[in-house]
Amino acid sequence: MALETAHTNGQAASGGSATEVTWHQGKLTRPARWAMIKHRGATVWLTGLPASGKSTVAAGLEERIAGLGQPAYLLDGDNLRHGLNADLGFAAEDRAENVRRVAEVARLFADSGTVAIASLISPYAADRLAARRIHQDSGVPFLEVFVNTPLHECERRDPKGLYRRARAGLIAGFTGIDAPYEAPVRPDVELRPTEQGVDELVTMLIEALRLKGVLPAAGVLAVQASGP
Amino acid sequence: MALETAHTNGQAASGGSATEVTWHQGKLTRPARWAMIKHRGATVWLTGLPASGKSTVAAGLEERIAGLGQPAYLLDGDNLRHGLNADLGFAAEDRAENVRRVAEVARLFADSGTVAIASLISPYAADRLAARRIHQDSGVPFLEVFVNTPLHECERRDPKGLYRRARAGLIAGFTGIDAPYEAPVRPDVELRPTEQGVDELVTMLIEALRLKGVLPAAGVLAVQASGP
Repeated sequence: MALETAHTNGQAASGGSATEVTWHQGKLTRPARWAMIKHRGATVWLTGLPASGKSTVAAGLEERIAGLGQPAYLLDGDNLRHGLNADLGFAAEDRAENVRRVAEVARLFADSGTVAIASLISPYAADRLAARRIHQDSGVPFLEVFVNTPLHECERRDPKGLYRRARAGLIAGFTGIDAPYEAPVRPDVELRPTEQGVDELVTMLIEALRLKGVLPAAGVLAVQASGP
Repeated sequence: MALETAHTNGQAASGGSATEVTWHQGKLTRPARWAMIKHRGATVWLTGLPASGKSTVAAGLEERIAGLGQPAYLLDGDNLRHGLNADLGFAAEDRAENVRRVAEVARLFADSGTVAIASLISPYAADRLAARRIHQDSGVPFLEVFVNTPLHECERRDPKGLYRRARAGLIAGFTGIDAPYEAPVRPDVELRPTEQGVDELVTMLIEALRLKGVLPAAGVLAVQASGP
């Protein structure tokens, strides 16, 4: 029965609390669902400067996991700003809310048995920690992945000319120029796109997911892949 | 490359626009993903009064689809108010934002190849129309399902005593009592829990998904299910 209605008196227009909203457990618990569909979910969270290579790695990872017959889904920070987060800007509090919503959605995908691949700058350590906690509280694996491309290299690439425009003062609050990027101190995985190709970087993430038990061990797949 | 950074000057704290945020197409298009995983996505949107039976139908549908070997995931309005929508109350504008976010998340799940089952009162026709448009604009099937249990029956059931408390003035803005419920005029499916059991109602939804081409035709499954 749905009770997504109730609020205590006086909270109607104030943003309210969920104190009278009860939790509905579906018939399928997460272990039952994961066992039924033979997939385990997780969130891979890619953080890094603009033009560091997050989207390229994310797209490669999505394709590789799908090729293994496992469901994966890319949650791209830019794309979500056209939909779920279209109401948010780039001030620090808007970035925090952006990260929070993406984390909540990633957690739902992971809960469903999909590997959610979140790709967004997420420049503040506190916001990323909040994203991790949302997963930890729910018992869902979370991998923070630092796409560590040096600023000068990101600025040299500058595929959309945004660094150039930020340097010229045409864009304000641009991460790496006049807005901070707090690099992860202890990421689960650190990728260096200037030193390795995309395929190698994706392989590192696949290995990390195997170590977490999210993807089956390499041997299992190797046996399946071996022909006569 | 990620550009989830840029905003034009002066929009920093105003909520901003996404005008400088570009769309990243992953390597996998939706048809390619759906073909690879052999599933098609869709959103089933259950609307109805509190205690009309939405959650029961939704849980039954999730389990039935999973039993067919297809991915399904329940997006329960109450549960999401503990996470993604924990910042929202029950005023009309908060309900609209609640519906909008659930619709955006459902669309992502459907895009991923999952049958998203959204279960929330969603009392305003305009909000439900917006949810439908979010799906139509994206080319994802959307079924509006009216769980049509009469108010007097919902109030008789009242499993959590919320109608009683609303009548006593202890809860304000309760849908069906002192907040409106705008019944769908042309839902894709209308369910009447007072006249049919849950299994029959779920079967109606399975048939509707087959007619939309989301689930394979009954014959295919019957052949698979037939033993020696």
